Amino acid sequence: MPFEHQRHKPPRSLGRPRELLVVCAPLRSNVNLSRIVRAASCCGLDRILCTGQAKLDRKIARDGADAITIEVHRTLPPVLEKLRGDGYRLVGLEQTTDSKDIHGYRFERKTALVVGNERSGLTPEILRLLDDVVEIPVWGLPFSYNVATAMAMALYEYCRQWPA
Amino acid sequence: MPFEHQRHKPPRSLGRPRELLVVCAPLRSNVNLSRIVRAASCCGLDRILCTGQAKLDRKIARDGADAITIEVHRTLPPVLEKLRGDGYRLVGLEQTTDSKDIHGYRFERKTALVVGNERSGLTPEILRLLDDVVEIPVWGLPFSYNVATAMAMALYEYCRQWPA
Repeated sequence: MPFEHQRHKPPRSLGRPRELLVVCAPLRSNVNLSRIVRAASCCGLDRILCTGQAKLDRKIARDGADAITIEVHRTLPPVLEKLRGDGYRLVGLEQTTDSKDIHGYRFERKTALVVGNERSGLTPEILRLLDDVVEIPVWGLPFSYNVATAMAMALYEYCRQWPA
Repeated sequence: MPFEHQRHKPPRSLGRPRELLVVCAPLRSNVNLSRIVRAASCCGLDRILCTGQAKLDRKIARDGADAITIEVHRTLPPVLEKLRGDGYRLVGLEQTTDSKDIHGYRFERKTALVVGNERSGLTPEILRLLDDVVEIPVWGLPFSYNVATAMAMALYEYCRQWPA
């Protein structure tokens, strides 16, 4: 029997709200930010913390723009300190010394996933505040994922570990 | 000791070439196609099969545009038949009847991952030719991932299962 379309199936339900937050350094591209918002909303997140201009393109973010609370902050370090106080593990997504392969990384349920600018990545000031840095393996050119692509992969991995 | 940047680390090496192919139905957006090309190239793929206009935006695809062979075909069904004959398992990325949750899906090494158009998805004609359909769980609005985001997640999962 052939497969038949079921576009926009009802979503899964979560046993309890996600305790995953996405935290974005100032991004160059609101397209990337908007893509992250749509993916995060699909994953059931309800809050994203941004810095910089942070204007959403609603054609890209779609209903994610309404489903998720977008908090815009002037600067990240105090936000990260606050999250740490609230019990979040601060996890950067980057290639650094001592970064851990995401394939073997066990996410804590209460995690803040921090991404940096497309060009400059996470600044030393932010790296200093993180508990862990995870990296996604790369096998080919251009040797780095687009920031929204990397975030999609990390969101996927978190949700795989914490499906409900 | 704080984490220190290592942008553009040398990539992982593959024990043998990837036997994963990406096959794209005609996409509305060459931005999406270009994003898929960059992600697939980063994952070590060396060949993508497309249909339709299939013009790359090199600012998005980056070096992936040169690292990967882009084959443009007029129509997919004969391409899929040929791949099946070459021993590839034909796996669609879609929400359908009998689609399998990607979290529990075991990819065969020799896989052709097939994605459909942003609006219409995979056509019945193509669905009829597939061995499996995998879907990525969705928990929130807009209840479907962007095609390039979904492909990034599926590429990630395949590479997690077949890291080398």
